Amino acid sequence: MSSYAEIDAYLDSHLDDSIAELSRFVAQPSVGAQNLGMQECAALTAEMLRKRGFATEVLPTGGAPVVFGERKGKGGKTLLFYCHYDVQPPEPLELWETPPFEPSLRDGKLYGRGVSDDKGHLTARLFAVDALLAALGELPCNVKFIVEGEEETSSVHLHDFVLNNLERLKADACIWEFGGVDHEETPLEYLGLRGICYVELSVETASIDVHSGLGGSIFPNAAWRLVWALNSLKGPDERIRLPGHYDKVRPPSARDVELMDLLPETAEVYKQQYGVQSFIKGLTGGAALRVEEVFTPTCTICGLTSGYQGPGSKTVQPAKASAKVDFRLVPDQEPADVLRALRAHLDAQGFTDVKIEFLGGEAPARTDPDDPFIKLVCDTAPEIYGKPMKLIPMSGGSGPNSPFVHELGLPVATAGLGYPDSRGHAPNENIRLDLYLKHARHMARVLLEFGK
Amino acid sequence: MSSYAEIDAYLDSHLDDSIAELSRFVAQPSVGAQNLGMQECAALTAEMLRKRGFATEVLPTGGAPVVFGERKGKGGKTLLFYCHYDVQPPEPLELWETPPFEPSLRDGKLYGRGVSDDKGHLTARLFAVDALLAALGELPCNVKFIVEGEEETSSVHLHDFVLNNLERLKADACIWEFGGVDHEETPLEYLGLRGICYVELSVETASIDVHSGLGGSIFPNAAWRLVWALNSLKGPDERIRLPGHYDKVRPPSARDVELMDLLPETAEVYKQQYGVQSFIKGLTGGAALRVEEVFTPTCTICGLTSGYQGPGSKTVQPAKASAKVDFRLVPDQEPADVLRALRAHLDAQGFTDVKIEFLGGEAPARTDPDDPFIKLVCDTAPEIYGKPMKLIPMSGGSGPNSPFVHELGLPVATAGLGYPDSRGHAPNENIRLDLYLKHARHMARVLLEFGK
Repeated sequence: MSSYAEIDAYLDSHLDDSIAELSRFVAQPSVGAQNLGMQECAALTAEMLRKRGFATEVLPTGGAPVVFGERKGKGGKTLLFYCHYDVQPPEPLELWETPPFEPSLRDGKLYGRGVSDDKGHLTARLFAVDALLAALGELPCNVKFIVEGEEETSSVHLHDFVLNNLERLKADACIWEFGGVDHEETPLEYLGLRGICYVELSVETASIDVHSGLGGSIFPNAAWRLVWALNSLKGPDERIRLPGHYDKVRPPSARDVELMDLLPETAEVYKQQYGVQSFIKGLTGGAALRVEEVFTPTCTICGLTSGYQGPGSKTVQPAKASAKVDFRLVPDQEPADVLRALRAHLDAQGFTDVKIEFLGGEAPARTDPDDPFIKLVCDTAPEIYGKPMKLIPMSGGSGPNSPFVHELGLPVATAGLGYPDSRGHAPNENIRLDLYLKHARHMARVLLEFGK
Repeated sequence: MSSYAEIDAYLDSHLDDSIAELSRFVAQPSVGAQNLGMQECAALTAEMLRKRGFATEVLPTGGAPVVFGERKGKGGKTLLFYCHYDVQPPEPLELWETPPFEPSLRDGKLYGRGVSDDKGHLTARLFAVDALLAALGELPCNVKFIVEGEEETSSVHLHDFVLNNLERLKADACIWEFGGVDHEETPLEYLGLRGICYVELSVETASIDVHSGLGGSIFPNAAWRLVWALNSLKGPDERIRLPGHYDKVRPPSARDVELMDLLPETAEVYKQQYGVQSFIKGLTGGAALRVEEVFTPTCTICGLTSGYQGPGSKTVQPAKASAKVDFRLVPDQEPADVLRALRAHLDAQGFTDVKIEFLGGEAPARTDPDDPFIKLVCDTAPEIYGKPMKLIPMSGGSGPNSPFVHELGLPVATAGLGYPDSRGHAPNENIRLDLYLKHARHMARVLLEFGK
């Protein structure tokens, strides 16, 4: 019996055990934004690593701790898994069919908060470790797990943690926390993540709200100040007006455009799924839309709040106004540069009264599509998924991959158990058990081949 | 004993009765915005008029009914009182020292929602009627009361009601719902009210909020659309950009400026009371600030709402955004013109996606400072207040005086029992009993002199 066959036999016969472990893991709430169950979940994560023989530490970060585990294997190479044990808040609770922290199995799917993002990824990878140990008696390579607790709250301490633990985290390659298949069941390989600089802009023009019959005539209006400040950042042409904002932007390479050309058409899917009538900048679809989706810096208002927001009218001039704004960054933009340029721009435009609160940032980072580790991850997939992985040069989203790429110097590959209806960050988050098993099989193969 | 002395003797000896009647009136909630107790309060208002011998009707308007009462008097002239029985919502309840609908007397003040705005004005005027009937056995002139139930919700049906009841409401002069003394105990005569056009602007760009890593790159953002549309209405120069918006504006007359010059300095008072650092347009104080405060059209953002407004960050592109905006109007601007210009302007600027909901409007209206009725109201005040009334050419606020001035052709005078700490629209609304008595005395004199 080949190694693959032995591994698969183990996985097939122990799937229930792994799902039971995942269920216990999900039943332990770990909502970072609400500081709910974080220490308990870190301890449980450490326990799960220790029982596989990983030398495990729960390390302070200044926020939720990082759980780090390491187990030696046969070969000299080291594979690092990045996962996280924190989850998004479960609200709105009334939209869940079963309670978010009481995992429920139905129709081949497991439901619960964090079951996909990201607890299922961790347990599926530990399941692959179990299968390798059962089949081979040892791991084919050194394996490290870094499992953080602040991924859903902008990984604010992770960059420093990596910088302070370069030796501990030393590895040859990294598997990222997420991945999955698209609506055609094609497994996806994301080669990079955009960066982000998330800020809250706020203005306070008075100590209390004032009747608009008085204040509207002669006092500065916080909401107007905010509107004008925002308008100075970007106009309807969608061009971000921070001086130098595009200076470090690297346009997509010929290879990137070639890969984007191979991706499926998305325009009609988006229109139906999100109810949008049209796209910005006159885009209508095709590779141009896909390139715009990931290779362009953005400035997005995520929220606005000021004054009276109830039904009907209230004649009040607001004393305070604020906006949540995210800047998505592409290589080689840096969040610190954006923050500096934003302050200088607002001051230059006369908006010294607009305060900036930095709510989190990450630099963009990418892995070469032709890196040997990407090839290894892709080459091990078709046997499991029945088709090759699709290379996506960049994700529109963001994540803390920059220190792994730039400080640890690792190729970072995505692979996972997600699918288009996983509902991460939303009610009724779920995973498909068939994809859970496939991901464990894939990870076992990656570890085996990587160790050769 | 002179008529004045007899009247005052009645008022002095019956103040407790009138305050008891006011307390029963206040104890009947009548929150228009919450449709709470409106029919009951209209019935109670009618009962209060009927027991003074007023021929009283409760008349439908399409919204809360109007209570109309009429009683013939000795002379041929008719004085019309405009009051309202509806009140502002009492929230936030936790800030009230005693419950808003359980009137409480302490330290010479009566506390409760509506005790000043506007129930106390109605009962003080009925108290004056009682005194005249007791002293003279009849009223010195015809007296009409129009008591509406939608003043706090933009008097949406009042203009049409006046147009449909011109004969019923026919009169020779009108006393307005409010008035009072300033911080120097000087009684104020407001000669006009600005108009208003209150709208909600809203944009919907998608059927659901979208992750900003996707939507922020290629979908139209509702919050950005709203910001750009608002910015097109007014820039930091405070000039309203609707075409033709200033065409019908009548600048203050020499007499207006003369009157504004006589008013006290307000700059430092405002800075202390509202915590503002400076005024718009480089204004620093003096008559220029006072003129700006009331004689300039305004465009005020009263509220903004879109997307995520909680703590920390959420990377979401909002599907919806909306703003509450009020335009204060000066003679001879009209709300219908503003609505038309706003739609045309938004369309011309490319904001056909921005919807306008009209939430209420009133035209501005003023009474001539040298009208004989104004002189009568002013001439009867010094004996009571110990000093002359101060003429204020215009209030910065708005109200439905336009149909009374323009359709019924009446001079409209303000006189009332308010004072700077009345807390109308706020928790712990209150009146001072000494000012209540003074207002009743003043109204009795106005009725007596008007009938001569």
